[in-house]
Amino acid sequence: MMNTILILGAGKSSAFLIDYLAENCEKKGRTLILADLDLNGAKAKLKNRPGTKAEQLDSEDGIKRRNLIKSADVVISILPASMHPVIAADCLELCKHFFSASYESDTFREMKPEIEEKGLFFLNECGLDPGIDHMSAMKIIHEAKAKGEEILSFKSYCGGLLAPESEDNPWAYKFTWNPRNVILAGQGTSRYIEKGDLKYVPYHQLFKRLERISFQGLGDFDGYPNRDSLSYRQVYGLENIPTMLRGTLRRAGFCKAWDVFVQLGMTDDSFQMELPQETTLKQFLNAFLPSQELLTVEEKLAEAIPDLDFPTFEKLQWLGFFEKRLLPKTKGTPAQILQSILEIDWELQPEDRDMIVMKHLFEIKTKDGVKNVSSSLVSFGEDSVYTAMAKTVGLPLAIAVDLFLDAKIQMRGLHLPVLPEIYEPILEELEKFGIRFEETFNAE
Amino acid sequence: MMNTILILGAGKSSAFLIDYLAENCEKKGRTLILADLDLNGAKAKLKNRPGTKAEQLDSEDGIKRRNLIKSADVVISILPASMHPVIAADCLELCKHFFSASYESDTFREMKPEIEEKGLFFLNECGLDPGIDHMSAMKIIHEAKAKGEEILSFKSYCGGLLAPESEDNPWAYKFTWNPRNVILAGQGTSRYIEKGDLKYVPYHQLFKRLERISFQGLGDFDGYPNRDSLSYRQVYGLENIPTMLRGTLRRAGFCKAWDVFVQLGMTDDSFQMELPQETTLKQFLNAFLPSQELLTVEEKLAEAIPDLDFPTFEKLQWLGFFEKRLLPKTKGTPAQILQSILEIDWELQPEDRDMIVMKHLFEIKTKDGVKNVSSSLVSFGEDSVYTAMAKTVGLPLAIAVDLFLDAKIQMRGLHLPVLPEIYEPILEELEKFGIRFEETFNAE
Repeated sequence: MMNTILILGAGKSSAFLIDYLAENCEKKGRTLILADLDLNGAKAKLKNRPGTKAEQLDSEDGIKRRNLIKSADVVISILPASMHPVIAADCLELCKHFFSASYESDTFREMKPEIEEKGLFFLNECGLDPGIDHMSAMKIIHEAKAKGEEILSFKSYCGGLLAPESEDNPWAYKFTWNPRNVILAGQGTSRYIEKGDLKYVPYHQLFKRLERISFQGLGDFDGYPNRDSLSYRQVYGLENIPTMLRGTLRRAGFCKAWDVFVQLGMTDDSFQMELPQETTLKQFLNAFLPSQELLTVEEKLAEAIPDLDFPTFEKLQWLGFFEKRLLPKTKGTPAQILQSILEIDWELQPEDRDMIVMKHLFEIKTKDGVKNVSSSLVSFGEDSVYTAMAKTVGLPLAIAVDLFLDAKIQMRGLHLPVLPEIYEPILEELEKFGIRFEETFNAE
Repeated sequence: MMNTILILGAGKSSAFLIDYLAENCEKKGRTLILADLDLNGAKAKLKNRPGTKAEQLDSEDGIKRRNLIKSADVVISILPASMHPVIAADCLELCKHFFSASYESDTFREMKPEIEEKGLFFLNECGLDPGIDHMSAMKIIHEAKAKGEEILSFKSYCGGLLAPESEDNPWAYKFTWNPRNVILAGQGTSRYIEKGDLKYVPYHQLFKRLERISFQGLGDFDGYPNRDSLSYRQVYGLENIPTMLRGTLRRAGFCKAWDVFVQLGMTDDSFQMELPQETTLKQFLNAFLPSQELLTVEEKLAEAIPDLDFPTFEKLQWLGFFEKRLLPKTKGTPAQILQSILEIDWELQPEDRDMIVMKHLFEIKTKDGVKNVSSSLVSFGEDSVYTAMAKTVGLPLAIAVDLFLDAKIQMRGLHLPVLPEIYEPILEELEKFGIRFEETFNAE
């Protein structure tokens, strides 16, 4: 009987995941091992609950890592996504089931035959986005298909943001997730399809390709296309859909200001800068502006960014770009230097509450005409540890593992949570935690 | 005694290089081996001159390649730059001297101790740009330094363009060099220093960061910053220079139109597109524009590129972007697809003459005040084989090898042509071929 769970990583978004599984250990006769570089941090998160134990682990230490994996039945990785192929390879070799909230990469697809052959279950993209978005969307898609309806358009937006009362800076943003991922978000070319036309958006156009998305009682958000939406046509069984777009949400106005950094090249992660130790933010900004004698940095910026408006200027000003503030870091890529600034100014404070917003917008052709379906999720965090991000990323993963160990999910192979056998019981359990989608309909 | 020369590659820009060396073979008792994938093409270029022979070589064929290198004393590589580390490694192992017109990469710098230890001579960047630019600039820099003068500013621009009578399309441009390099030119972040401020230009700003450069009798050109100008401060012995920029020239107006492709993402080489076989240029363009019902592609383009002017529109129109012209290639990266279009429209015709323009702009602090020095080179091709590009890239390389075999260059080690012992005799010989800089001075 399977009863030992290994969680690799106890970082930022692990609180709900750990609690959900730890609290069931005694009742269900399970053992939970939580392995992290920070042993005391891991212990604190387990709170001495029966059946749980913490282990110190440097995930690069292959011997210790593999010994821990050997001792478990299922492995949950919340390590950085770059470690997943390594962990997955260990699991495959040692015949252990694998769960993650990260994107399924090609490495996994190459492992598929062996996963099936060995009768293992590997589940990826079972967090928030990707995760809850797949599950809630598939529920609507499967229902429509069952009625013989045709999905004409599907747009899905999600954002990890701040509860309105914590939006106390002009960006209305703080880090509730890996800062580096926020800085580099959108690099590469994003792809989607709209009314049958394939659309390709280079990074330097991405934060201009916005759709205004509103949530009742919360106001307006900017939605921008996220990564490769085209590949999800097959995953969702919507191969011939004319319009499909997955996107990211920020507070209205954020994208226009963030685009200043993008336009100037300040999010570039491809080369090293070595600036003098006493460099100010203003001098850092000036390095990305053309030389023009007689013009101030502010004036050069206004020339370089012709549509610079006051709300954008104010956001930059609030970060200290027009004062004598010194750079916290002077050596590194532009992206690393920018991150060092934002990590100070966008730090989530203990009393801050975050907020997850997600919205699916469907156009469905029914026998009575075209129906618009909107399905929205809003989830608030409790504080800077029990965040909405930790809840919505961690609970689906925890619930999936719990269902799997209880044999309520019996399938094997490499999967995303797009099959009813997986997403139905997870969505049902999530509702108990207030993670519930509100659907609205209106016929055209 | 060294007397066997091996030329690897007999491509586009090899005519002058081959002629110069082949014509001396008999008189100087040398053997010239020309190795190329196309044996008959190589034979044709050698014209049966005594002491010369052609060999068929696929440069990936290590055994044959190394046998040919073994048989030579000096090796000239005009293969694609990506092959140079391989050829250089062969030369190092087999103790052969190496010459190229390409950029000196880190691979070479790592080989430096072994090159010196084995008493070999490796010379890179001995073509046009890099090459003639280094030599002519160093001459001025060394002269100024000898007089105790200080270089305050050095900007150097070069372009491989068309003679005015061949500028018969709205772009005033045809390919006189590797088309792929033209399409990808400027990707990454360009770097220079201006009035003591380090400047970083991301690709999507590069074709807006223009300086207007004029040549007497030829009119105006756009100059944009090229690659990493900062690293040449050390090469030129100008570590503390306040302003230094190396740039590329295009006909005035070219950059603004090329920037449309850059802004839309059509020069992206990082992902594959798979378009239907009958896709038009207009549909290809539309894939990079936002969907907006009721707007035509032309109208959407005008919205996406707010400063689109008629000369720019005309250039795109001339390529067929607003007609029903079909894409010559529908699978590949955007850059590859764009290249397939331009290879047809920008093909150099047999009767076309190309033109090389180069300009150095110095500000030099003398005891009498600040002096502006401008040094310009204009060189015209003869036809589509004996191009100015082939002449200015090939002759410096050929002359360097000739001088080396005649023991007029006696140094050893890893070098660029920035030392008087190398550049003085080369510049002198180039003058016989009409490659001559015109200098103008004026005090401020």
